[in-house]
Amino acid sequence: MRIVPATTPASSHILLIRCPDEPGLIYKISGVLFRHGLNILRNDEFVERADNHFFMRTELAGELAAEDLLQELRTTLPAADIRLSDNRPKNIVLLVTKEHHCLSELLVRHAFQELNARILAVVSNYEVLGDLTRQFGIPFHCVSHEGKTREAHEVEVQQIIGQYAPEFVVLAKYMRILSPEFVLPYANRLINIHHSFLPAFVGASPYAQAYERGVKIIGATAHFVNEQLDQGPIIAQSVIPVNHTHSAAEMAQAGRDVEKIVLARSLRLVFSERVFVHHNKTIIFE
Amino acid sequence: MRIVPATTPASSHILLIRCPDEPGLIYKISGVLFRHGLNILRNDEFVERADNHFFMRTELAGELAAEDLLQELRTTLPAADIRLSDNRPKNIVLLVTKEHHCLSELLVRHAFQELNARILAVVSNYEVLGDLTRQFGIPFHCVSHEGKTREAHEVEVQQIIGQYAPEFVVLAKYMRILSPEFVLPYANRLINIHHSFLPAFVGASPYAQAYERGVKIIGATAHFVNEQLDQGPIIAQSVIPVNHTHSAAEMAQAGRDVEKIVLARSLRLVFSERVFVHHNKTIIFE
Amino acid sequence: MRIVPATTPASSHILLIRCPDEPGLIYKISGVLFRHGLNILRNDEFVERADNHFFMRTELAGELAAEDLLQELRTTLPAADIRLSDNRPKNIVLLVTKEHHCLSELLVRHAFQELNARILAVVSNYEVLGDLTRQFGIPFHCVSHEGKTREAHEVEVQQIIGQYAPEFVVLAKYMRILSPEFVLPYANRLINIHHSFLPAFVGASPYAQAYERGVKIIGATAHFVNEQLDQGPIIAQSVIPVNHTHSAAEMAQAGRDVEKIVLARSLRLVFSERVFVHHNKTIIFE
Amino acid sequence: MRIVPATTPASSHILLIRCPDEPGLIYKISGVLFRHGLNILRNDEFVERADNHFFMRTELAGELAAEDLLQELRTTLPAADIRLSDNRPKNIVLLVTKEHHCLSELLVRHAFQELNARILAVVSNYEVLGDLTRQFGIPFHCVSHEGKTREAHEVEVQQIIGQYAPEFVVLAKYMRILSPEFVLPYANRLINIHHSFLPAFVGASPYAQAYERGVKIIGATAHFVNEQLDQGPIIAQSVIPVNHTHSAAEMAQAGRDVEKIVLARSLRLVFSERVFVHHNKTIIFE
Repeated sequence: MRIVPATTPASSHILLIRCPDEPGLIYKISGVLFRHGLNILRNDEFVERADNHFFMRTELAGELAAEDLLQELRTTLPAADIRLSDNRPKNIVLLVTKEHHCLSELLVRHAFQELNARILAVVSNYEVLGDLTRQFGIPFHCVSHEGKTREAHEVEVQQIIGQYAPEFVVLAKYMRILSPEFVLPYANRLINIHHSFLPAFVGASPYAQAYERGVKIIGATAHFVNEQLDQGPIIAQSVIPVNHTHSAAEMAQAGRDVEKIVLARSLRLVFSERVFVHHNKTIIFE
Repeated sequence: MRIVPATTPASSHILLIRCPDEPGLIYKISGVLFRHGLNILRNDEFVERADNHFFMRTELAGELAAEDLLQELRTTLPAADIRLSDNRPKNIVLLVTKEHHCLSELLVRHAFQELNARILAVVSNYEVLGDLTRQFGIPFHCVSHEGKTREAHEVEVQQIIGQYAPEFVVLAKYMRILSPEFVLPYANRLINIHHSFLPAFVGASPYAQAYERGVKIIGATAHFVNEQLDQGPIIAQSVIPVNHTHSAAEMAQAGRDVEKIVLARSLRLVFSERVFVHHNKTIIFE
Repeated sequence: MRIVPATTPASSHILLIRCPDEPGLIYKISGVLFRHGLNILRNDEFVERADNHFFMRTELAGELAAEDLLQELRTTLPAADIRLSDNRPKNIVLLVTKEHHCLSELLVRHAFQELNARILAVVSNYEVLGDLTRQFGIPFHCVSHEGKTREAHEVEVQQIIGQYAPEFVVLAKYMRILSPEFVLPYANRLINIHHSFLPAFVGASPYAQAYERGVKIIGATAHFVNEQLDQGPIIAQSVIPVNHTHSAAEMAQAGRDVEKIVLARSLRLVFSERVFVHHNKTIIFE
Repeated sequence: MRIVPATTPASSHILLIRCPDEPGLIYKISGVLFRHGLNILRNDEFVERADNHFFMRTELAGELAAEDLLQELRTTLPAADIRLSDNRPKNIVLLVTKEHHCLSELLVRHAFQELNARILAVVSNYEVLGDLTRQFGIPFHCVSHEGKTREAHEVEVQQIIGQYAPEFVVLAKYMRILSPEFVLPYANRLINIHHSFLPAFVGASPYAQAYERGVKIIGATAHFVNEQLDQGPIIAQSVIPVNHTHSAAEMAQAGRDVEKIVLARSLRLVFSERVFVHHNKTIIFE
């Protein structure tokens, strides 16, 4: 399914299980849920054959005894990684630079409760987007990188983010490369929108690269950030056709419409607990 | 998932279950499968909330005692509609008129075992596509409609099809309207490719209609045929952009690339047992 | 080309010519431009063969003697409809009801000068979107239709719009049907976003219709409004795949991302003088 | 425009002009055409601003004195590269290896005169596709590479191609890397379909690479071949969504539908004289 509800009904709980595959897994798990008298709204499973790993996402309706349920599941599946989410809005902080389109998209969706997230603050290395952010009643912090080492600047940004203790940090067109030290603490919680169809045009000014190469399609990629630049697990991608009449600037401009929709879509996937990260890939129950 | 393997491994069995939803269904079913020591390769479920109907498709590996399994499942779920498919290639007959593109596509895929079907014969109301069909070693029957009533012509066509006793009949650009009498015996076994993005441009010469309307996108729709023209359950659709420079003929020409791919895709979905028909819609586990 | 620069360089002039086709048209026109020493940045022509009508759009650089140029062109092509645009931002008024997504998209683009238009005011039959509009510093007028005849309500809306004397009126999800009396004065200046892939699902609640029909793709259509509901010249269309798991509400939600992008795109096409309306179609030089 | 007529009416001539941009070019050229009393069916121009180069494609109707026309144009534009095509079907030779899908697509289109080309022969390093080719009445040459140096093998292939003196050579899934010596003589006349969305996944087994990277979209690229592997001017690209459920083999299978359509589309563009190669890019008047 290509579409993600902006918000899953807050009432539902979401059970997330991952473990080595073995016969009878579904039987054992559904047995526990049945004995707890839980109504399954939706159930998705997948087995990664490459390493026989089992993934399951189950939407449960109504009241449940979370602790008892988790305990019984863990007793039944000692080897499994089990999580029960109440699917409440996630707390997030946004990092931006000068381009407004992704930030605008998220601020508007946030203002109309379409993001299943709470934007706690926006941090930027420029003042440019301060007014827009404050206009939506969100705290804006400008931390200029001017005359600072990368380390010094990252520490400052880190401290501000730290004050908000967000569950996720979103790079909504943050145009600085982050060091592994910055990235590490946010494993699988740091999401970036890259303005190209990865792995094409890794790194800086991908639209200039696309223009030089004379491609006929450009794209955008939302992915989790890991230590290697633009190498993290891909969440969502989308493309748009271009041709010889486009300058690099026109490609960039056109790409923005794709970037903001892809980023918003990937956030809805992640925030509605639909994304498992497995090795360097994502398993997504859309 | 948007992609359909051309052929599911012949070894696997596919279990198809539909019944009113109730708590514990998955538990009961997976219990039976577990006790039979069956290995689940893939499992898909869906509950249609509009009428609380449950649908499940399970790919099973290896040998199994079909009769015992079915009996135990039917005892466990008396209200369910249960089917076990050995997923062998389906026997089909194609109906065509003059356009070659859909027929060519299916003959080529058939020749290279990509269709999970056996084309038993091709029937047409013209001779035009006879050479192409015979070239691929498939029997071709021309039944002209000239000087015959619709009824008389359909009876002739029916008789030829009847000799082959196909599981499915595919209208691969068969440009005559079929009577309910013809359609009825093939409920959910008669598939048509309509050269428009239904429900836009129902009926004849949709490209002429699209041209007149000045649309910017045209499409194709593969669907099961029922008594009402172009009203049957939709299996797959796809589109392609057009603009003011296209004549109706150019739109038709461009549409052919979409038609043949959509038809081939819908056949692979149906022939790999991925499609449930429920009321006037399809539920598809891609 | 599928991409439209958000704003054409304000410096350039755009020459728009339409007339019955005849030999030597390009020669005659380019001759006038050459004698005026004008530099052609870009030139597009099209001849509609259905009625042999010629359309030409030329981007001219630098200073020019508008009156002289027009006079000479009109003398050279007495039968032609000739217009010279300085391509300044268009003055527009938006009509909305309760949904924010199209309005948000236009307000944000407007705030960052990406629309090649000045939003003079927003008029709605509800208060819902007042805060959002005022937040962007745009006047908001609420004209409730409660307890008024359609005529009476339209007259009120008309009067408010009239005060701003806009060049274009945009229906950014205005959910009331407009009478021919309202529409007529805005021939080719009134743009609507329809939440379906026209001509499929004309009229009310297209997503409910799409859900009932079980389509696999939904779309949006931006078009000029004429006297007949949803029958005006189409400017742009786009689509998104859906499937059996989507409720009508989820289809509507997904459709919003398509609607706002298609509307913004169609406005950029119209506001950059790329769209000719010819009979009930558009000729677009993208 | 995204659609290419399979064949341009054979009656029409196509004038192709490229030269450094200067004021009055269109005026001068249209003047010559006007004095020759030629009817312009369609005219496209483009100016590459990066190096101010002018490109023009003009479809002319009816009889014309080719030599006189060319002479006068060359006198008028001494610096221009001018070509006049009678748009007859191109003579081509196909190189293939073992996969049938691109070859099948071209053989079928050729059989129904949809390619604006004559397939003179098919050359392969395996026998696999011999029957299919001969079935369509096309000569098939198998030149095994077994126990030969790349050079020796290429010389053999070259000699066979040479006998047919084709205007274009098409690599329809020819899975061997060609040496610059082989490529050089066919500058801008050698077209390849690469089974990835270039520049992503250059080189061998791109689907395996795509699977490893966990991309959500795969694609295909048709391009002219130059000395550097997969670096030549891109003609057409297309994509298809994939997800975590796809094995590398399923991605490859799905990609084939994209590959064959993209290759056929690029050939129609090239064979209808719509493609200019400029530096390492294509300028395409669709």
